[in-house]
Amino acid sequence: MTAVKPKGAREDEILAAAGRIFREKGYHATSVRDIADAVGLLKGSLYHYIRSKDELLARLFEGLLEDTVRELEAIVAREATAEARLGEMVRAYARAVMAHHDAVGLYLRDWRSLPPAHLASLASRRRRMRALFTEVIDDGVRAGRFATREPRIAALAILGSCNWVYEWYRPRGRLGAAAIAEELAERAVRSLRP
Amino acid sequence: MTAVKPKGAREDEILAAAGRIFREKGYHATSVRDIADAVGLLKGSLYHYIRSKDELLARLFEGLLEDTVRELEAIVAREATAEARLGEMVRAYARAVMAHHDAVGLYLRDWRSLPPAHLASLASRRRRMRALFTEVIDDGVRAGRFATREPRIAALAILGSCNWVYEWYRPRGRLGAAAIAEELAERAVRSLRP
Repeated sequence: MTAVKPKGAREDEILAAAGRIFREKGYHATSVRDIADAVGLLKGSLYHYIRSKDELLARLFEGLLEDTVRELEAIVAREATAEARLGEMVRAYARAVMAHHDAVGLYLRDWRSLPPAHLASLASRRRRMRALFTEVIDDGVRAGRFATREPRIAALAILGSCNWVYEWYRPRGRLGAAAIAEELAERAVRSLRP
Repeated sequence: MTAVKPKGAREDEILAAAGRIFREKGYHATSVRDIADAVGLLKGSLYHYIRSKDELLARLFEGLLEDTVRELEAIVAREATAEARLGEMVRAYARAVMAHHDAVGLYLRDWRSLPPAHLASLASRRRRMRALFTEVIDDGVRAGRFATREPRIAALAILGSCNWVYEWYRPRGRLGAAAIAEELAERAVRSLRP
């Protein structure tokens, strides 16, 4: 008799395997069969847990964005200056992009083909992230520590500088992820100084 | 007897039509037949000028990047401070991204599927743009007007803030392209102040 795992644990296992195989083989080259093999299920049984490969990608991103949103929310809520909080947010966000740069690249290229329900939920998390960056910039402007007439554009410029990292970051490059995150944070905070 | 156009002029006409139709219908929804119709050629005759839809996209980008590289080179060569030149480069580059935001989105999503010869030529133009931004930042650091230990990362951060615009720019949004370019230039120049 095989041990029956609870559905939630099985789903987590499938998501983790899918993330690993997408990274190794690339999303388009990965088949549902590859993922089923990795978790020791028949392809037909896998469909008990997921509807499609697209749905797996969407759920991977939801998890990733959700974790990042929570981390950013915790930083925004800290008792610290806007500069300190913005610097920490950029470090956290840039590190998340680099830790998952393949997945981020995949998402940014292919999000338009995701199932509509997932698209809406991903879009709402992306809006939440933009709002968190804008909030800290607004705080800094009110405190006279930041100067910009367009806090929302400034937030988008910072998010762009971090998102773009997926295009050029190489895990075995000259600079490590921590040094890159530090440079991006320094530039972002300085970009708003009065 | 129909007037015979020189091959170069005909090619320019085809490229212009392709750019317009890609923008209107989207790249994937556009057929080679649509483009042939727009320039009054039979589909078979169009293949005398171009090999595929991918090749058209690649050539559109080569033209776009080439124009932008030339504009940036002219700015770098000016007699002006590094701040003034960097600000002008960001304004020019951001305006180019916004003027062609659909095409830029298409390229950033789909460049991996372009013919290899075009890929190499596009990559070399992208490297050239990065080098031009890095050069002006280096100039500023030498003159004591900019401070960064990583001019190349700073250049990538600025390019990222501009490239990302294709994801959020709306031609009929609250802020016009000129105001957005101005805000991005301001943030970029300030991000490097000592």
